[in-house]
Formats: sequence, structure tokens, C-alpha cells
Amino acid sequence: MTCHQMTRVERAQLAMMLEVCAYPKPGNVDRCHDYPDTRLEHFLASTIMARPALEEASRGSGRIGEIIGHAVRDTNCHEGGNTHFGAFILLIPLVYGDGIDGALEAIAKTDTSDAIAFYKAFAMTAVRMNETDELDVNDPHTLTLIRERDMTLLDIMQHSAAHDMIAREWVTGFPQTRRGADLLKELGLGRNSITDTFLTLLAAEPDTFIIKKHGNAIARETMERARDVLDGNLSATSFDADLIQRGINPGSVADITIAAIYLALGEGWSWDS
Amino acid sequence: MTCHQMTRVERAQLAMMLEVCAYPKPGNVDRCHDYPDTRLEHFLASTIMARPALEEASRGSGRIGEIIGHAVRDTNCHEGGNTHFGAFILLIPLVYGDGIDGALEAIAKTDTSDAIAFYKAFAMTAVRMNETDELDVNDPHTLTLIRERDMTLLDIMQHSAAHDMIAREWVTGFPQTRRGADLLKELGLGRNSITDTFLTLLAAEPDTFIIKKHGNAIARETMERARDVLDGNLSATSFDADLIQRGINPGSVADITIAAIYLALGEGWSWDS
Repeated sequence: MTCHQMTRVERAQLAMMLEVCAYPKPGNVDRCHDYPDTRLEHFLASTIMARPALEEASRGSGRIGEIIGHAVRDTNCHEGGNTHFGAFILLIPLVYGDGIDGALEAIAKTDTSDAIAFYKAFAMTAVRMNETDELDVNDPHTLTLIRERDMTLLDIMQHSAAHDMIAREWVTGFPQTRRGADLLKELGLGRNSITDTFLTLLAAEPDTFIIKKHGNAIARETMERARDVLDGNLSATSFDADLIQRGINPGSVADITIAAIYLALGEGWSWDS
Repeated sequence: MTCHQMTRVERAQLAMMLEVCAYPKPGNVDRCHDYPDTRLEHFLASTIMARPALEEASRGSGRIGEIIGHAVRDTNCHEGGNTHFGAFILLIPLVYGDGIDGALEAIAKTDTSDAIAFYKAFAMTAVRMNETDELDVNDPHTLTLIRERDMTLLDIMQHSAAHDMIAREWVTGFPQTRRGADLLKELGLGRNSITDTFLTLLAAEPDTFIIKKHGNAIARETMERARDVLDGNLSATSFDADLIQRGINPGSVADITIAAIYLALGEGWSWDS
């Protein structure tokens, strides 16, 4: 079958779709599990509604912070709450710059207007920040602080990197995203590689989304149990059932997995075999 | 949450996504069931890849037959075979004309070039026609016949209406699509109305896709058992398991369900509650 080359936008949308469908993906919404307020269809609706912002990013012009804001705004049109905020923080620069190198160039050019647009987008989501954070998204004083200090969006990420693995990707050159893409290619063609990539990333460092919701100890325990699954000492389905029952969802590792699938799809890996 | 009004394209994509996720949808690929060669992700990938053709249709210009061809071409970029051919035959005119009235106007204007573009699209799919059909898609003579007789795409649908319920929608003014949309609204908000709408349409007339694959008797039996489910005399999940095990998939009723969701989404019905 002769086919057109997939566009960056299509790759990003496929990555979002493939990640949420992959099963079993312990603790997260997947093909077989919903959370009461956020369901499979919410993630898939966001995948569809994110297109204009992804198109905007793929033109490689305009401001990254604002484009992330557009993605959040356009995908907030359902009752499922935030689905892809972290994924957009990774995908928008990767699409914009057509890969990690270009993303880092674009990130280096962010300014205070990006930081402000980003904070405004953040305020639209229910994502929680570190509670003691002086750049609290719910504090109207934060925007004044950003302006006074002339902080760029990269500065904001630097500020958040210690306690947020998505921000850390920006600051350190997308190492986990790169690793995820390499894992997908090593594990081989086909959708089953996605769940193993997810588990491997989850076993590598504590998920900062879990830390924010449940604290360090539970994030570490989750990490160790992901390792047990990879070592064959625990079944993925019981790990999944336990996390879901306790409301422990490794949301940041899921976001990195999406970015990894996006990269891998551009490097010859295919889900479709 | 303030939201932009959904575009026709987004509604069509949401309809395709919601239909394939709905569960249990006896006999078809759904959230919890794949067929060996056609999986949930294939349907969702088509939902993403169909966008340019749906955009083309939403501009309300250009040729319907050609646009259906573009939808088939762009969604053939995966290994899952035909996923949405019947759905496109319904959705493209509905999107083009912004509803049933406009679709019928557009359909009335189809000409021989539409018929030829449609047959070329058809030849790209693995969909089977009636075996004794003189307008066989695999016969190169067919295109000559269409030209000699100066047949429009509506003529082709007229020719196929007796044994194809999708073609019948074109010829009779989309009555099952209309009925499906009304059912969704009667059954109420939320994704659960989709499966009941599907079952009600399945219980109304034999699915012509089943007739082509398995014959009249099995299509009638499937229809009667859908009625049993609606009457509470058979569980949807055992009906589903039995159909899947026998490879009986009511594909045409699924296509009509997609078109019905598309209409209902434009008339105030929401999946999201």
C-alpha cells in the first residue's frame, strides 16, 4: 500500500492514541480501565482536539508557551479534566523543533511571555504543583513575580526540575524521552513494546506525579514493583489492579512514554505489526 | 469551561472514536475486543488519518466520490485493512452538506466522475460486493460499463441498495442514520446510549455486511438475538462472545451508528456525562 509520509502532527496524535490504548499499563487509564472522572474516551477526545495546537507547533513559528496554552484550552472541552498537560509540555517543543535538537533550540529561545502564557494554561488544569512552591499557579502574585524576575519558560522549568520529571526533560535534554524511544526500537515492532517501555521507565526513577499526590515512599515503592514486574516476580495485571484500587497513577511516566512513541515513530519504529 | 464550538470535522472524528470504543458492541471491534487482523488501534488510527478528507468535505466543495477516495487512501496506511469504508460513504456527504438535507442535495449532484472515483476507492479496500454483481469492483470492465451507461454515484447506490444498507441510506434519505440519532437523544446523555442504539438498529433489519459474509439466515438470526438482548432475554456479553467466536461482525450497523453519533453530536446530544 502506497502511503503518504506521516506528518509530525499525525505522529503526535498517534503517539497519544497508542499510549492510552496500551494495556496493561499499571495504574493509568488504558484500554481496559477508566478512572471514575477520567475515561479512555476523554484521552482520545483530547487526541483529536489537540490537532490545531499541534499544527501550530509543526509550523515551527510562534511562541511555545502560547501553543502549550492553546493545546490545554482546546482539550479542556470535555468533563475528563486534565489528560495531557505533561505530554503537551514535551510534545509541543518536539513537534515545533522536529526532534530533540530542534526542541532544545526552541526552548532556549523562550522568554517571559512564554512563561506567563504557560502559567495561564497551567491555571486551567487541575494539576497540582509542589505545595510549598513560591511560584504557585493559584497565587495571582506569581505572574507579577515572573515579570519582576524576567523569568523565561526555561527558567520556570529549571525551578521545577527537582520535583518534576517533565520539567527535568526540558532542562536536561530529554534523556528519558530519548531512552524510551530507544527502548521501543530495541523491544521491537508492535504495540506490545509500549507497555514494556512504560514499565522500564517507571522502574528507573520515581514518578513525580505520584510523589505530588502520594509522597516519596509510595513513588519509590511503585518504582520497585515495576522492577519486580520486569523481573518476572509480579504480574503486570495484579500490579495494575493494585495501583488502580489505590488511585496511584504514574502520569508523568505516561507523558514521557507519549513523547518517546512520537520520536520512535519518526525513526522507523512501527506499532502496526 | 468556555470552549470553542466543535467543528464538523471534530464531530465526525469523535463519532468514529466513540463508536469503536463503545462496549459491549456485539461482534465488532470494541474497547475490549480485537479481531486478529483488525484491532482497536487500527480504527483509532483511521480516525486520526481521515482528517484531511473530512476537512475537504467540510469545505462543501469538490466531488463527493473523490473525497471518499481520499478518505480511503489516507486511512489505508496501516495493516488493519478496511475499517471505515461504509462510514465514509455516510459521513462524507453528511459533513459536506452539514446534515441530511445538504447531504441529499450533494448526492443528487454526483456524476460519472464520482462513480469512477468511488469504484477506484472501492478497489483499494477488501470489502466484498454481491458475488453475482455485474458492477464487480474487481472487473476492469466495470469502469467501462459505468462510462458507457453514464452512471452517477447515486445510480451506483441505487443499483446496490437492495443488498447494501449503506447504499440504501443514500437512496432513501438516511432513515436509519436519522433513527439512530433520535435514539441516542431519547436514550439520554452519555456513552452508554451508544451500545443500546447499536443494538436497536441491529434488531431492526438484517445487517447487509453479515449477509455478504455469512448469508441471510445468519443475518436474520443475529437480528433476532439483538432483539433478545434488548428484551432482557440474553446478555449483551454472551451475545458478543458468541458473535466474535463465529466471526460475525455487524459492520454496516456500526457504520450507521457512526453517522448517527455524528448527527446527534450536532443536535445537542453529548457523550460526556
